[in-house]
Amino acid sequence: MQSTPIQPALIQSTLSQQIAPFHVMELVKQADALAQQGHPVVHLSIGEPDFGTPPPVLEAYCTALAEHKTRYTAALGLMPLREAIAGFYQSQFGVLVRPEQIVVTSGASAALQFACLALLNPGDEVLLTDPGYPCNKTFVQAAGGQPRFVQTNAANNFQPTAEDLSAAWRPNTRGALLASPNNPTGTRLSASQCQAICTAIAQRGGFLIMDEIYQSLCYGSPARSILQTMGPPDEHNQLVVINSFSKYFGMTGLRLGWMVVPDYLVEGVEKLAQNLSICPPAPAQWAALACFDQAALDICEARRAEFGQRRDFLLKALPEAGLVVDTTPDSAFYLYVKTPIDSDNYCNRLLNQHWVCAVPGKDFSINLGHERMRLSYANSLNNLHQAVERIRAFNTSLGVA
Amino acid sequence: MQSTPIQPALIQSTLSQQIAPFHVMELVKQADALAQQGHPVVHLSIGEPDFGTPPPVLEAYCTALAEHKTRYTAALGLMPLREAIAGFYQSQFGVLVRPEQIVVTSGASAALQFACLALLNPGDEVLLTDPGYPCNKTFVQAAGGQPRFVQTNAANNFQPTAEDLSAAWRPNTRGALLASPNNPTGTRLSASQCQAICTAIAQRGGFLIMDEIYQSLCYGSPARSILQTMGPPDEHNQLVVINSFSKYFGMTGLRLGWMVVPDYLVEGVEKLAQNLSICPPAPAQWAALACFDQAALDICEARRAEFGQRRDFLLKALPEAGLVVDTTPDSAFYLYVKTPIDSDNYCNRLLNQHWVCAVPGKDFSINLGHERMRLSYANSLNNLHQAVERIRAFNTSLGVA
Repeated sequence: MQSTPIQPALIQSTLSQQIAPFHVMELVKQADALAQQGHPVVHLSIGEPDFGTPPPVLEAYCTALAEHKTRYTAALGLMPLREAIAGFYQSQFGVLVRPEQIVVTSGASAALQFACLALLNPGDEVLLTDPGYPCNKTFVQAAGGQPRFVQTNAANNFQPTAEDLSAAWRPNTRGALLASPNNPTGTRLSASQCQAICTAIAQRGGFLIMDEIYQSLCYGSPARSILQTMGPPDEHNQLVVINSFSKYFGMTGLRLGWMVVPDYLVEGVEKLAQNLSICPPAPAQWAALACFDQAALDICEARRAEFGQRRDFLLKALPEAGLVVDTTPDSAFYLYVKTPIDSDNYCNRLLNQHWVCAVPGKDFSINLGHERMRLSYANSLNNLHQAVERIRAFNTSLGVA
Repeated sequence: MQSTPIQPALIQSTLSQQIAPFHVMELVKQADALAQQGHPVVHLSIGEPDFGTPPPVLEAYCTALAEHKTRYTAALGLMPLREAIAGFYQSQFGVLVRPEQIVVTSGASAALQFACLALLNPGDEVLLTDPGYPCNKTFVQAAGGQPRFVQTNAANNFQPTAEDLSAAWRPNTRGALLASPNNPTGTRLSASQCQAICTAIAQRGGFLIMDEIYQSLCYGSPARSILQTMGPPDEHNQLVVINSFSKYFGMTGLRLGWMVVPDYLVEGVEKLAQNLSICPPAPAQWAALACFDQAALDICEARRAEFGQRRDFLLKALPEAGLVVDTTPDSAFYLYVKTPIDSDNYCNRLLNQHWVCAVPGKDFSINLGHERMRLSYANSLNNLHQAVERIRAFNTSLGVA
């Protein structure tokens, strides 16, 4: 260290080297190349709604710009927006959350990061589900924590039970990070499951971070929040709820989310937000106020209905095309289905021979990844019809349809 | 851990508890209360330009929204914007940086965070300057690193020398995070100082993160980049340069910055960005393209000239009003000046008796904080005139003017 190395040792963190690349990126590059060659690629790979941002929200955005609302805001977000989010919990779920408990963030991404940094000390273990959102382990690791995976499966609707979490709990486990609805499986925890999980975690003095970013995108039964079951976050439940304007409200690229935290965490999260981000994007916050107006909600509900039609179509059509669909996803816009052959091989051939781009399962699961793929229905019914026909043709060639 | 605690131990990270609150926040609350009581408070506390976002950038922003450019972008940012930033380095500084080395981020905040997460392993030490930007130590700590402060002073223009850094270097020191121009002191490193510092760090196989977010806000002598001295970041200099659209381009609340990194770090930073942020705000990226058009640059240059006039006024008027100004800041929009009495006491009385809000020095310095305050000239000349008259009156009452 004290002498001049001829060939210096390059400095790079273990964390940044250990993060697995997203395998879907390579496939999307191939898809783009195929599309440029003129092939009619259909994407079932996409993690953002195809509808874009609702016009009333865009209008509110432009108004905010015209009014020069481009300055830093409070680190925790604009109070009117925090109040509007609290109002949303009351009107939609009948839950009383105080605006002071709500923290607006640069997407749910920043919320997940602040939650982990506010809760974890180096070496603390956090339970995550497999399959699950691949970035969750990185949020834990970037805060110095250790992810520990709880395997879920189709038989339990790809959600953990209280017993699963209890069995996985170890002396250095501090809590769990779960998602309901879950990505990639599109499945939810029931109220009674939430209750049992919270009780099991509280018995161990742990925290629970619950990702509800796909909350309002659900079909068949109403949207739910763990707050309905457990009440607002407090020092007893040590609950942190994560949400986002990205999915239901169609604001993906605007980078705006929020978290609901117990009072005792607010000051710590505020200091983290001040230091690490200054504030969430300002005009997006002003625009987000329009999300809770009836005009925007009507548009979002119409979009939800369309997502529901697409889901219904796929749940019927995919088995007829030779794919095993062994859960009944009722939320988000994903299905995590079995592939007749190894999923990398399947997704590669599906793309290169049939121009349908799906996400290989291993981006989401260590153990089930090789036998499953994620299909997104953030695409039009017309395109979904085409995709299913091509999947049928591919499966026929494989002798499974 | 395995039994039910009656009063559970609240889970909260040591990091979030250890971050010092910004003392200025308390003062700004008091200032707001005084303003609401009708007192004509003048803020010298503000860390963002008072000019707002240039109209051509706002127009480009609205156009992006009208064109529905609200979707996720690539994690490293839009390639046209990365190309435009590379073009800016070439046209302004004659430096050839490839667009592939440029990473667009959610403000310089995210860039500083990614830099620390990409470079540091737990326990690695990073040299910072005191005084300096208070969040820097948090970026280091949030990545598991240990900040170690190098004291600077007025005699060396509040910038460290190569000897300072060499003397502070220890076996677990991995690099330094410096700022030129520096906040709160408004002072810069010369090209020869940069050269000497880089050589000293390279001899130790270390990295250098250089914060240049106030780069183009400078007066008297031209804007500089360490890239002019050291060439583009590579595996030999292990240099990471941080910049921002917030200050010179007036885009504070839009949260957009960038970093320039060695090739060997790009993949790691990309994975961190994908996992921790998905992407920087999309329409702000499209809007930022307009920053490099002549129309926006002309506005930014006119604003820079106005900042220069304000600086000239304060450098002349403050000593006449009884304050010791012992450096000649030539950049950013701050002066870090001595207070006649303890700075907390001084700033409190200056606000409550004379309605001028300045930032107590301890937010920026462990050792010098009690004897200095930060004055920002992100306020009109008229307001600065008023503020100086009040400072003179206060200092007269203290017997120092």
